[in-house]
Amino acid sequence: VPFLPLIYVAWADGELSTEELGAFRAAIHRQPGIDAASLAALDRWLDPELPLTAAELEDLLGRIHHHRDSYLRTGSGNGVGEVASALGMPYEDVVRELLGAVSDDAPSAAALRVDTSAMQQLLDGPEREARARMRTVLSQPSFRYRHDLGTEARRRQVSEWLQLLAREGFGARGLPVELGGGGDLPGFLAAFETLGTHDQSLTVKFGVQFGLFAGSIYMLGTERHHRWLREAASGDLPGCFAMSELEHGSNVRDLRTEARLDAATGEFVVHTPDVGARKEWIGNAAVDGRMATVFAQLYTGDTCHGVHALLVPLRDASGRLLPGVSVTDAGEKMGLNGVDNGSIAFDHVRVPREYLLNRHGDVAADGTYSSPIASPDARFFTMLGTLVGGRISVARFALSAAKSGQAIAVRYAARRRQFGPAGSAERRLIDYQSHQRRLMPALATTYACDFALKALTRRYLGFRNEAQREIEVQAAGLKAYVTWHVTDALQECRECCGGQGFLSANRIGVLKSDTDVYTTFEGDNTVLMQLVAKGLLTEYRQQFGSMRLGGMIRFLASQASRRIVASNPVAARKTDVAHLRDVEAQEFLLRYREVRMTASVARRLKRLLDKGEDPFDAFTRCQDHLLALARAHIERVVASAFRAGIADAPVTLRPILTDLADLHVLNGLDRDAAWFLSAGVMEGNKAKAIRNLVLQLSASIAPAAEGLVDAFGIPDAVLGAPIAAAGEHSHVLRG
Amino acid sequence: VPFLPLIYVAWADGELSTEELGAFRAAIHRQPGIDAASLAALDRWLDPELPLTAAELEDLLGRIHHHRDSYLRTGSGNGVGEVASALGMPYEDVVRELLGAVSDDAPSAAALRVDTSAMQQLLDGPEREARARMRTVLSQPSFRYRHDLGTEARRRQVSEWLQLLAREGFGARGLPVELGGGGDLPGFLAAFETLGTHDQSLTVKFGVQFGLFAGSIYMLGTERHHRWLREAASGDLPGCFAMSELEHGSNVRDLRTEARLDAATGEFVVHTPDVGARKEWIGNAAVDGRMATVFAQLYTGDTCHGVHALLVPLRDASGRLLPGVSVTDAGEKMGLNGVDNGSIAFDHVRVPREYLLNRHGDVAADGTYSSPIASPDARFFTMLGTLVGGRISVARFALSAAKSGQAIAVRYAARRRQFGPAGSAERRLIDYQSHQRRLMPALATTYACDFALKALTRRYLGFRNEAQREIEVQAAGLKAYVTWHVTDALQECRECCGGQGFLSANRIGVLKSDTDVYTTFEGDNTVLMQLVAKGLLTEYRQQFGSMRLGGMIRFLASQASRRIVASNPVAARKTDVAHLRDVEAQEFLLRYREVRMTASVARRLKRLLDKGEDPFDAFTRCQDHLLALARAHIERVVASAFRAGIADAPVTLRPILTDLADLHVLNGLDRDAAWFLSAGVMEGNKAKAIRNLVLQLSASIAPAAEGLVDAFGIPDAVLGAPIAAAGEHSHVLRG
Repeated sequence: VPFLPLIYVAWADGELSTEELGAFRAAIHRQPGIDAASLAALDRWLDPELPLTAAELEDLLGRIHHHRDSYLRTGSGNGVGEVASALGMPYEDVVRELLGAVSDDAPSAAALRVDTSAMQQLLDGPEREARARMRTVLSQPSFRYRHDLGTEARRRQVSEWLQLLAREGFGARGLPVELGGGGDLPGFLAAFETLGTHDQSLTVKFGVQFGLFAGSIYMLGTERHHRWLREAASGDLPGCFAMSELEHGSNVRDLRTEARLDAATGEFVVHTPDVGARKEWIGNAAVDGRMATVFAQLYTGDTCHGVHALLVPLRDASGRLLPGVSVTDAGEKMGLNGVDNGSIAFDHVRVPREYLLNRHGDVAADGTYSSPIASPDARFFTMLGTLVGGRISVARFALSAAKSGQAIAVRYAARRRQFGPAGSAERRLIDYQSHQRRLMPALATTYACDFALKALTRRYLGFRNEAQREIEVQAAGLKAYVTWHVTDALQECRECCGGQGFLSANRIGVLKSDTDVYTTFEGDNTVLMQLVAKGLLTEYRQQFGSMRLGGMIRFLASQASRRIVASNPVAARKTDVAHLRDVEAQEFLLRYREVRMTASVARRLKRLLDKGEDPFDAFTRCQDHLLALARAHIERVVASAFRAGIADAPVTLRPILTDLADLHVLNGLDRDAAWFLSAGVMEGNKAKAIRNLVLQLSASIAPAAEGLVDAFGIPDAVLGAPIAAAGEHSHVLRG
Repeated sequence: VPFLPLIYVAWADGELSTEELGAFRAAIHRQPGIDAASLAALDRWLDPELPLTAAELEDLLGRIHHHRDSYLRTGSGNGVGEVASALGMPYEDVVRELLGAVSDDAPSAAALRVDTSAMQQLLDGPEREARARMRTVLSQPSFRYRHDLGTEARRRQVSEWLQLLAREGFGARGLPVELGGGGDLPGFLAAFETLGTHDQSLTVKFGVQFGLFAGSIYMLGTERHHRWLREAASGDLPGCFAMSELEHGSNVRDLRTEARLDAATGEFVVHTPDVGARKEWIGNAAVDGRMATVFAQLYTGDTCHGVHALLVPLRDASGRLLPGVSVTDAGEKMGLNGVDNGSIAFDHVRVPREYLLNRHGDVAADGTYSSPIASPDARFFTMLGTLVGGRISVARFALSAAKSGQAIAVRYAARRRQFGPAGSAERRLIDYQSHQRRLMPALATTYACDFALKALTRRYLGFRNEAQREIEVQAAGLKAYVTWHVTDALQECRECCGGQGFLSANRIGVLKSDTDVYTTFEGDNTVLMQLVAKGLLTEYRQQFGSMRLGGMIRFLASQASRRIVASNPVAARKTDVAHLRDVEAQEFLLRYREVRMTASVARRLKRLLDKGEDPFDAFTRCQDHLLALARAHIERVVASAFRAGIADAPVTLRPILTDLADLHVLNGLDRDAAWFLSAGVMEGNKAKAIRNLVLQLSASIAPAAEGLVDAFGIPDAVLGAPIAAAGEHSHVLRG
């Protein structure tokens, strides 16, 4: 039996000489301890007169694979090593080569057709009317792109566009009817998301005005502030959200702008103590903003009550800055030049006491501070909780930008031809494996993110109070995961369109430059991912209490899905497509990684803390590990939301959605294959098989890709790119 | 012995109850076949009265690791599985947990100081005078950045800058003295590279004028064309390099612009047959270009001689387009808006027969075609060979852009503070593990690329003819590898600078947008990497002839370094720092991957071809594999060039350079750990140890990072970014 691999290799090449076979046989005969029957069989297999047929070889390979374990265990004892050396092949290499081989020539799955309109209906969801209205408005000639405008003109254009959207009622749609709104928050969010397929400056300006400014008045303020909502929602009162400072972006708790009560006059004095405390990157500040929600350390007397928000007028109705307010234009940026960012400094600016947004903390006329939330910590996080909606929206409109970019890149790839077999027409880019590999997994991930964000939005809208903490963590994690995905996906789109992708008219470059800052605004992604990891560790500690080593192993074992591996160690090396595409098997891997990473990082932290390390330092030393954990968690959440969405989808759409889900998940497993291999839940042949399946799924989805991007429902006028247009330009792109 | 892991776990947690220990003992006593001596020893180890000391535990873990193989092989036989289950821990998990553990608490290496000026001298190399002059010129006030200019003004500014550089003699520096040049090609290339730390539009325009236009006249033309060189090098004759067409970018061989001889008048008629054949993305075309090197299919009568280049005047001295020439402005781009790209169409434009750049192919007055290179294929590739210098230069100036971005990001990280332990000052960003992980490996790779590009440049300058083919392949591969690195590195820099990185004044965003197209111009990276893979396969076939399975295994075995694994299977799981940093061990892994990938992709191709698949299709089916191979090859080339450079460096610089080289190489191994794990040359614990070492090296290099970026020698004025400036702004960035 140990000689089988050598025999296979000898015949597989098909042209071993009689001499070589003879030498092989002689080497075998020199070995002691081989019984006569085995020798006879070996002689038969090495008979130059009777070469093995293809079927026999196939059979032989099957037997070798069947006895895989014994080959791996046995090593080159029994003289087989010597025989192999005589042939010039180390036995271990032969075994590794044969056992590691995975066929990549499996016929690829049949391409599936997409029912584009059914898919669009599914993606549009219950808010299809709001989306359709936004699409109609954006398709009007007034919203046509201009790529030749300077910064001043761009800003003017975006302000005008914003007014048009406000006039169509998009700004007020999400507010309660009794406050003059449309009472349709889901519709507001869906329209906002749809807007993200268009110009990003407009989208961000829309978010600043209606999401952050009006939203903070609504969420942090009370009745006495809500009178401003009508004007905010109509765009008549342009506003800012002034949280970040030059020296404190992520670390909001240590902001240094001050709001001190002057009890004598019943006013707050808002002041910027030094240049590092000026409000920075504030959208709408440089030109348009007339009022701002300002975050500051609230003081009564010498007592600081921590960060609170209050309204501060910036400019009068004619746009002149008010006394004590100074604004510096942020100037040119890498993108989003239609948004007038600026910094704001306050020099003892006085506002009435009632301008404090007092839902979570108030100051009475006599200077008494009160709050419905006793703990300052809890109060701080409750106020920041108002950012959750913003983070979900950033992720949603960022994803819309990726959809526009992918629609353009896929259409171009389906038309553009370059190179080809001698004497034939040139091939379409989308027919190349490398092109499929760059575009299809990312497209699948866009679909996955879309389902995950919709699921999160539903939870956010429905259960705001009960599961608030968990929703906050998921919003932080998804915002980071999605915006990083968008950056990567648009990068691939740009490169896949070559020089065309660099032209502003084709919009991919513009989308890329504009969205780049999304990974660091509304919460720096790295900071957000650490919030996610902290949340998981808290949960783990609650669920489990101790972080002892034995306890952790028991915890891992207690996970129901753990049994898949425990009871079936073969799973680690299964390579058949059915297994690789099995949802439960995929979920096991994703969950296993998350649980194990949670437990191991918890143990590391405990060890460091036990040694007396400062908690902050201990956490910093595990940052890389914590970020990997957060990513593992979010990947599982996204995959599971996608699967749940598919279960609810019309039956006809499920096959293509399942292809996309498999591609998305397998691509993620492939990217992190080193972890699974190291953890022992995947073997080399399985990792290879996953990679092959990613290629195969990319190839089988490619013919459906145009339908999949059409289902995003982006009107041609909104897409804008000449290279993505059917008709007039397509003749230019033929091969 | 099999119980040791359980005993370790039992005590490691330090608080096993007397009941639990009793249950454990009882379970052991229930097992048959344990001899009395072992039982007594086990009882001793589980005696609640005599807990194991820390030293004994340490010793126990050592023994477990020592018998690693037997634990992995044995599995949960001998009743140990049952005992483990009784404790609620699957035995396999216990073993995996203990054997997989890699200590990450090793003290990090002492930070090394950098002798900045010695390092700069090393990086500047023999061409330091040329670099110094370029730096002086670029530091003049006239080269100060303006971020508020519209496209027209930007283009004007860049044209003026170009004239200033030409006046300083940078354009002529590389040409032979007898043609009016400075006879200093290395100095020209070094100055060009140095220019890349400044504005990218200027750099590209410089490359178009002096590299591509003047370079093509010099390289493809003969004496009769060289009379134009003086004007080209002085900038008085602005020129274009018109190769790409709308429908044919990468596929140069199938260009469709025509140059037909009119024998009657002794002229070539240059014509664009349809819109798809117009020359596209041509730098200098939209505004400035007065002459172009045009690539066209050369016809005499009805015979096509393939692609040739000829000079075609575009505009007269006053800048008016000549009859038959039409130009369309490419319009706004994602970046490089200081370069006036445009498309050019020719309507039967006549130029004298002598305008054909006739070094490699000529047409006599009577219409006879002749060429010193008989094979049309060889002729085509020889002409394209003139692109090699351009590709090397793109890689070099792209890397300069990364250096500028990294200098800015590192300086900012060393000043900016955010968050910190309770009650202490906030921490500098550079002190965070995640920040180190993002910036340091990329900085190490920039150093590695710098050494590799200098080595390649030396070979290019010295041995142009002998090793031309290999140099072409390396230029293609390094151009792709470096420009992808630059894109990734600048992305990290941008994110690491948060909102500040988005401001144009801080330049990182500008550098990112400008350099983005480098991955797809001067050869699309994906296409270039396939050239590299093809080159390797050709070499493999030449070296080895057959692609038989047995042959391949022998080939692998014949690689000398192969013995490292063959004779020492322990290497796959060695985790000590000395081994991980051992140059030979690293080189073995890099070479092993390359050789094995070469062999396996060669076999796959052979199998597909044997089945009768079209070679083009077979190649396409292996694209992903081929790209991985090309990357593996280039990674090895870069690493080995870096090591060779270190050997030649001053002794005092070697320690820090060695840290950088290790970080660069180990980071690459970490990224591709899945491959090494699958191939069986790395085990899980080693993969983890490599990842830990990457973190440790990143941490130990971080304190030296400012010195390392200072050594790039970029003057403050050229760096430009306020966030990178010492002095006046730094107070703004404190915590």
